[in-house]
Amino acid sequence: MLGKIALEEAFALPRFHEKTKWWAGMFATDTDKHTAEINDVGPIRLDFAERHGVGLQILSYTAPGVQDIWDAKEAQALAVEINDYIAEKVKAHPDQFAAFATLSMHDPQEAAAELRRCVTQHGFLGALVNDTQRAGVDGDDMIFYDNEKWDVFWATCTELDVPLYLHPRNPTGTIYDKLWADRKWLIGPPLSFAHGVSLHVLGMVTNGVFDRNPKLQVILGHLGEHIPFDMWRINHWFEDRKKMLGLAETCKRTIREYFAENLWITTSGHFSTTTLHFCMAEVGADRILFSIDYPFETFGDACEWFDSAEMSDTDRLKIGRENAKKLFKLGAYKDSTA
Amino acid sequence: MLGKIALEEAFALPRFHEKTKWWAGMFATDTDKHTAEINDVGPIRLDFAERHGVGLQILSYTAPGVQDIWDAKEAQALAVEINDYIAEKVKAHPDQFAAFATLSMHDPQEAAAELRRCVTQHGFLGALVNDTQRAGVDGDDMIFYDNEKWDVFWATCTELDVPLYLHPRNPTGTIYDKLWADRKWLIGPPLSFAHGVSLHVLGMVTNGVFDRNPKLQVILGHLGEHIPFDMWRINHWFEDRKKMLGLAETCKRTIREYFAENLWITTSGHFSTTTLHFCMAEVGADRILFSIDYPFETFGDACEWFDSAEMSDTDRLKIGRENAKKLFKLGAYKDSTA
Amino acid sequence: MLGKIALEEAFALPRFHEKTKWWAGMFATDTDKHTAEINDVGPIRLDFAERHGVGLQILSYTAPGVQDIWDAKEAQALAVEINDYIAEKVKAHPDQFAAFATLSMHDPQEAAAELRRCVTQHGFLGALVNDTQRAGVDGDDMIFYDNEKWDVFWATCTELDVPLYLHPRNPTGTIYDKLWADRKWLIGPPLSFAHGVSLHVLGMVTNGVFDRNPKLQVILGHLGEHIPFDMWRINHWFEDRKKMLGLAETCKRTIREYFAENLWITTSGHFSTTTLHFCMAEVGADRILFSIDYPFETFGDACEWFDSAEMSDTDRLKIGRENAKKLFKLGAYKDSTA
Amino acid sequence: MLGKIALEEAFALPRFHEKTKWWAGMFATDTDKHTAEINDVGPIRLDFAERHGVGLQILSYTAPGVQDIWDAKEAQALAVEINDYIAEKVKAHPDQFAAFATLSMHDPQEAAAELRRCVTQHGFLGALVNDTQRAGVDGDDMIFYDNEKWDVFWATCTELDVPLYLHPRNPTGTIYDKLWADRKWLIGPPLSFAHGVSLHVLGMVTNGVFDRNPKLQVILGHLGEHIPFDMWRINHWFEDRKKMLGLAETCKRTIREYFAENLWITTSGHFSTTTLHFCMAEVGADRILFSIDYPFETFGDACEWFDSAEMSDTDRLKIGRENAKKLFKLGAYKDSTA
Repeated sequence: MLGKIALEEAFALPRFHEKTKWWAGMFATDTDKHTAEINDVGPIRLDFAERHGVGLQILSYTAPGVQDIWDAKEAQALAVEINDYIAEKVKAHPDQFAAFATLSMHDPQEAAAELRRCVTQHGFLGALVNDTQRAGVDGDDMIFYDNEKWDVFWATCTELDVPLYLHPRNPTGTIYDKLWADRKWLIGPPLSFAHGVSLHVLGMVTNGVFDRNPKLQVILGHLGEHIPFDMWRINHWFEDRKKMLGLAETCKRTIREYFAENLWITTSGHFSTTTLHFCMAEVGADRILFSIDYPFETFGDACEWFDSAEMSDTDRLKIGRENAKKLFKLGAYKDSTA
Repeated sequence: MLGKIALEEAFALPRFHEKTKWWAGMFATDTDKHTAEINDVGPIRLDFAERHGVGLQILSYTAPGVQDIWDAKEAQALAVEINDYIAEKVKAHPDQFAAFATLSMHDPQEAAAELRRCVTQHGFLGALVNDTQRAGVDGDDMIFYDNEKWDVFWATCTELDVPLYLHPRNPTGTIYDKLWADRKWLIGPPLSFAHGVSLHVLGMVTNGVFDRNPKLQVILGHLGEHIPFDMWRINHWFEDRKKMLGLAETCKRTIREYFAENLWITTSGHFSTTTLHFCMAEVGADRILFSIDYPFETFGDACEWFDSAEMSDTDRLKIGRENAKKLFKLGAYKDSTA
Repeated sequence: MLGKIALEEAFALPRFHEKTKWWAGMFATDTDKHTAEINDVGPIRLDFAERHGVGLQILSYTAPGVQDIWDAKEAQALAVEINDYIAEKVKAHPDQFAAFATLSMHDPQEAAAELRRCVTQHGFLGALVNDTQRAGVDGDDMIFYDNEKWDVFWATCTELDVPLYLHPRNPTGTIYDKLWADRKWLIGPPLSFAHGVSLHVLGMVTNGVFDRNPKLQVILGHLGEHIPFDMWRINHWFEDRKKMLGLAETCKRTIREYFAENLWITTSGHFSTTTLHFCMAEVGADRILFSIDYPFETFGDACEWFDSAEMSDTDRLKIGRENAKKLFKLGAYKDSTA
Repeated sequence: MLGKIALEEAFALPRFHEKTKWWAGMFATDTDKHTAEINDVGPIRLDFAERHGVGLQILSYTAPGVQDIWDAKEAQALAVEINDYIAEKVKAHPDQFAAFATLSMHDPQEAAAELRRCVTQHGFLGALVNDTQRAGVDGDDMIFYDNEKWDVFWATCTELDVPLYLHPRNPTGTIYDKLWADRKWLIGPPLSFAHGVSLHVLGMVTNGVFDRNPKLQVILGHLGEHIPFDMWRINHWFEDRKKMLGLAETCKRTIREYFAENLWITTSGHFSTTTLHFCMAEVGADRILFSIDYPFETFGDACEWFDSAEMSDTDRLKIGRENAKKLFKLGAYKDSTA
């Protein structure tokens, strides 16, 4: 399929070259290749896109990124730098690249303001945030956005009519020591990523973020971070807890309704047709978006899988491109990929 | 279907009546009814079984149970009391009831010894443990069993040829404060249970417990605590991490192989045909076991669902009874349910 | 779900009361009840609809109907009578009832003219035809519409922008004697219906009807009369036969493309969630329409199944109502069912 | 996966070289290659097997074969010739090749006798028959085996404890003229094959063949010739027809029971994971057998698909080999493929 849109595609700042390479050592088979790929916002990924039928890549700063910086000022300064950097890069290839804003999440007003700047001045399509914000004097605190304090931020998202991609980040601090230190192989894609994001987004659901911001759109990667698997079970217990225990005070709709009206899932890093079909049954093809997770995954793996996965032509178009065009109002994009 | 075997079925000690009732207040619509049901090891659940085609119930002490007691001596004393109590109850209805041992998990040797006593003297069919053991002076520590220190216990399981059911328990201590306190509706079946058990059992996988104890059999409830959803993704990253990063030192087989040879999943509390079919594709009907999770779920909900869920007659028999008969060597049970 | 639209819903002419009752004897448990239900175009089915959340019923004359009449004049006269009869009935309940035209299929021009009359004068939403038209002096001939002679009819469908529902009819004549006489239990829903319609509609595909009439919309009942099961296999062989053997001369697109652009399937008489999920994967939820097949099936069986079948809220709305609203341009219908 | 067993694998008699080549012209891209492959019972397919992990091929004479010969004596003579020919070939490679008997189906006693000879003298593993036997003075008659006259044959199958593979053949005679002549692209794998076999085997079901021969085992190719798609619908109508119309006189069990106890399906020519998963839900992995349909399909297409299709290791082994070992009592085969 030509003209696919991909939306969990990472870049890094070239000035962090050494750190990026060190980080790559924890998961990449070829650290030099990975570093070159993630630092490139030009020919390398444009060539992959051309070869694998990707029309538009929505770029975002790599995890853990700004969410890893527990000094609020430093975090904000870096976010601004990243946004201005990628804005320039996107301008050079406006038909092939778009961007999600990078945000410091220490303060809701500040995050909202930077999102507004990025959307109105740079034309960014939303924001991508890496789970909780590290904070506290030693970085052991975790700021969650699933409470009323953050409504000003969520209101800005809906006012600007842009989605937020809730991406994972690695566990840190006490949680790391208590749960992950002795089982390091589970950190990242195998388990910790889904634990972090599923907790955060279901916290948003049960704490009423979507009830107070009914037009808010949040995107989850990796086919939904395990949540679709338990759609029946979550629904069963939520509805029971509404009947008698007060959950209905903050969470008025069913989990299926939040998935129909507020949540999206992408295929990033989960190239399983069986799981995709399961998600088509539980979530519906209208809320599923193609993505790669480059350069942690390859264009080849993602696109060869998606292009040949068994599904209807209608759903392939929707998941591959049309749903994203609706979500991001990319009406004009249609012609360029015809 | 008649003669179903169910294996995540809870009882409590009547002497904790008040505590049980208080606990029930957190999730049960009718606390008196729940307390009566969980304290009964006789007519109430025998009647349900009769009406809903359950032949054999394998009983286990309710969570968090002994895993919630951070004083090691107290934990051990309670475990012994529970085991002797339920052994008596089971003797009264040997064709309808069986039991899993309750174990204090403060010390591997002690746990192994009590398991041996229960299996050899009481005829128990294995053990059920509620995730990590609370420990430490204030109960904030968590003892995991996914390390070499516990090999003596796992060796005893395989020597006795009995499985361990790894059941969830509620988050406590620092983890509770950091992750769950502000999103209380996610504690238990909606999310925290799956987080706890998936971490623990995948820790066993990656830390080599199954490689060092290749015949060990571990049972997971709730259709596998989310893991089947990510079978492709876990496999993808594990195999990558083996190639270059050393995972292969402790974890020699693929995640699919551990699911084929060491792990079982039950339908407890997850009465979704869509998810069951998905698990049949990813895990295979030979490793799926019917269960209810009574009295947190009802016999009616579980059995009416299972008896009418779309599947082949062969798989209904296997999941409903035959797999459990193989796992627990219940050859003689066949005749009594014919 | 309220406001469902159902589109394979049969009525009979009261003046054939005795024949209807005799026919009912071949499959109905209660022939009087069946006869009363199929003759009613008023309170009985309106009451069922009210109780089971059906908003609009698109009515069609029961099979085999006019397709069973091998005298062309008689067939045409009966078709006109049926259409005028049901037009009156629909007028009395315009928000609850709509109709498909009944057509004699002896002559393409005549069928086209009657369709035009029904759509333009009576406001019918399309036509429903019962597979091949019996013809010949003794009724042993079968007129298929999958050839160029019928393009004038198909062109009228697309000009009027209305779909044709290709419904089954019972085997007759030589085919009956050769294939079905000795295995009578397979006549109708268990097998012969799917054989008839799958042959006819795939004949349309391979003989180029959809290539010559690219906007033509054809609806198949019973989740697609077996065709989705073989989507992979049909595609595999069609594409092979295009490469070397000339199929591409008449059939330029893939079988998946015809299903994405020209074909629709309904749930009539096939209340299986497993098969529905399979069709969602192979055909896509955008081309699936709820239907009952009343009074051969009951409102209760169809609606209780559909309303509780596991699927996303989005897809339930689409399959239950929204797809039909798009296909039949029922924009105003939205408000009446809100 | 190594050591796969494949059981719909065709050979032809070299003396029909010209006819085979002419026939290949109707579907093969390279008629010389096809003719060479189907005439070879040695190095070509042994090499494919080696390269694609097939351990044992159960060979059968290509369709329509003896079922196309309406002269009874000629048919019997050819069947004997074929069986003696392939017996010699199999002897040369007893670990790689096995065979199904070819049978003239003009007369039940004769067919039973030849089957007995093949099983007892040649060690054949059962028989493969191409749907109905052409008969009559001009070949327009079709002999079905779904009636009491054939019980002597079915009794011999069960006495010898060998299965019959009911393979399709092309439509001929009146049926061809009435249904298939004008839609030739549907002849064979795209449609006519499934029509023929589904009618025949469901005729066996409803006419009581399996009730009178409860141990009879029949194998269907192509994932069941559409029948699993309608398992719900067939069951629904069969059970209704039992209640009131007499079907229960001959057909005492449910369609699901026949699939659990008498029927098997193979993957021949249907390399769709989606359809396979659907069949795992509706039929169960215990009754599914890997097959290729060589040389009409390639070893590469079949084996690369099967070896990488998403499923549990347990089911891959069962479908790929273990189920076949049970069905054909190939206990000794285990060691040779370990």
